[in-house]
Amino acid sequence: MSRHPGQGSPALIAANNHENGQTEMIRVVVDAMGGDYAPREIVRGAVEAARQPNIEVILVGQREAVEKELSGCDLDGARISTCWAEETVSMDEDPVRAIRRKPNSSIAVGIKLVKSSHSSAFVSGGSTGAVAAAALLILGKKKGISRPALGIVFTSPSGPVLFLDVGANPDCRPQHLVQFAEMGNVYMKRIFSISEPRIGLLSNGEEETKGDKLTRATYQLLAKGGLNFLGNVEGHDLPRGKADVVVTDGFTGNVVIKLSEGLGEVFAELSKQAVDNNPIFREAEKRILNYTALGGAFLLGVKGNVIITHGRSDAAAIKQAVRIAEQMVRQRVTEAIGH
Amino acid sequence: MSRHPGQGSPALIAANNHENGQTEMIRVVVDAMGGDYAPREIVRGAVEAARQPNIEVILVGQREAVEKELSGCDLDGARISTCWAEETVSMDEDPVRAIRRKPNSSIAVGIKLVKSSHSSAFVSGGSTGAVAAAALLILGKKKGISRPALGIVFTSPSGPVLFLDVGANPDCRPQHLVQFAEMGNVYMKRIFSISEPRIGLLSNGEEETKGDKLTRATYQLLAKGGLNFLGNVEGHDLPRGKADVVVTDGFTGNVVIKLSEGLGEVFAELSKQAVDNNPIFREAEKRILNYTALGGAFLLGVKGNVIITHGRSDAAAIKQAVRIAEQMVRQRVTEAIGH
Repeated sequence: MSRHPGQGSPALIAANNHENGQTEMIRVVVDAMGGDYAPREIVRGAVEAARQPNIEVILVGQREAVEKELSGCDLDGARISTCWAEETVSMDEDPVRAIRRKPNSSIAVGIKLVKSSHSSAFVSGGSTGAVAAAALLILGKKKGISRPALGIVFTSPSGPVLFLDVGANPDCRPQHLVQFAEMGNVYMKRIFSISEPRIGLLSNGEEETKGDKLTRATYQLLAKGGLNFLGNVEGHDLPRGKADVVVTDGFTGNVVIKLSEGLGEVFAELSKQAVDNNPIFREAEKRILNYTALGGAFLLGVKGNVIITHGRSDAAAIKQAVRIAEQMVRQRVTEAIGH
Repeated sequence: MSRHPGQGSPALIAANNHENGQTEMIRVVVDAMGGDYAPREIVRGAVEAARQPNIEVILVGQREAVEKELSGCDLDGARISTCWAEETVSMDEDPVRAIRRKPNSSIAVGIKLVKSSHSSAFVSGGSTGAVAAAALLILGKKKGISRPALGIVFTSPSGPVLFLDVGANPDCRPQHLVQFAEMGNVYMKRIFSISEPRIGLLSNGEEETKGDKLTRATYQLLAKGGLNFLGNVEGHDLPRGKADVVVTDGFTGNVVIKLSEGLGEVFAELSKQAVDNNPIFREAEKRILNYTALGGAFLLGVKGNVIITHGRSDAAAIKQAVRIAEQMVRQRVTEAIGH
């Protein structure tokens, strides 16, 4: 490791500075080896992010690959350091086994930097399963949270919408969906300053009698709970932004984001046929359909800030992911979830 | 009823003619009262359909409303007749109760015309639940089918794709999804002459270990079965046409079609901002995103041909729905499902 933690815990120092009204320096670990365009685009995005005020970035990955990319970057004004991790986890490895057998993978090393409070957040475009497994095994769950969930934020005509779970938990029980709603409530309050986020439950009809067994049972729990529960929202309500937080199981949520992405691509291709590179279409694709262009998903409910970027992330997406990490740290989202 | 059945059963006569290589006349009942633009657009679409070769249409609905609309239509060359049904089922009524309590609703009367073999198919834009309930209660299920499913066909760059269930069964067991695959296999063979339809299972990952419990168990059954099973398909594979038939539970399927519709609308609005009424966008919306523009959903597994159009269907959509009904009858899809 080319950078060593000082005496104090950066996370705690950050929190204290925040309380004092100062803008604290946030340290974010970026996995240089994760993603389709790694390490080049990741390193470039990380360097860009490290030029932002009050952000420090630690790149974790294979020394040779990372140094080669860094040598091609203008590092002037970038608060960037490196940490070597010679193993990598591939997309088709069993996540839990990969994390157990490769303690020197960039994912495991990166998450351990968060665990040791050397860094406040971890950003990776590697295997979602492996990052989630590392977060669970190394950081652990927040008390009161039985199932951490993967959330994304997309924009809608009514504002940002947090959608979760998008894949961490294919099979859920009603209490899990209620916890997703509670975590989403915290996120939208803290990150977007929405005082009473409107909570929606994704279903196949508006009425409370609609839904599969899971959804119908969840409806009853949410209706009795203390959140601002709107009721069921349907597939067509999602892009409209009818609710600020929409919860579903990780199977349905994953189908939803991948379908949106696929439709966005088809849309983009057709747009090109009609009006080559019209900026409105590029904006539309980015804003409404390609949720993943918004900087990545985040894992809620673990003891640390973990951002999982899309495999196809380029430098701009990595920079945006570091910005999400920064917001989560500054607004102390993880501290406010569970106990 | 202004038209009475003759001695022979039209459905049987039709089938016999078909065997003899002649083009038989197909009689389709259209529910004049179902849909947001009923009765006007329904009546107009029905009249258009009734001008097609070898198609007869029976409009079922409230006398006063239907006669008023018919009086404004050019009926020249249209083989159209009427059947009065003075009750209507609203969208928010409990489906089973509505069908039981309103034997003279347009839905119940229309389905009974199919039951009595007076007509070969029923087309309605009314409450999906009520039409499905009437089909189950009056026509009954085909033997060997435990759960009739609602399917839609959308076009993809690789050709038509049948997607089911889109809402009839929010909670399914693995055997139900296998039956959906078998019914879809029959449909694509008969209607699109695909000799060995590629069957896909919607899941949250390609690998057979991905999925919720239902999907993982279904994978094992389909892998052992006699269909051309491709394996799992993901959300982004859907618009690409990776499989000819994609099966899922009715909860996920319903979310998928409504989300696609919602994204299509957002897309259309943005297109208008950029290029007012560019025909490529209108075509794109119709072809890829707005599955419902393709003429409606059909109920597979009941003893009769039942087509449920989108609530927003206009005359063109109704005409297209009658065309789907005709194809189902001519290709004897229902006869080939179950036993």
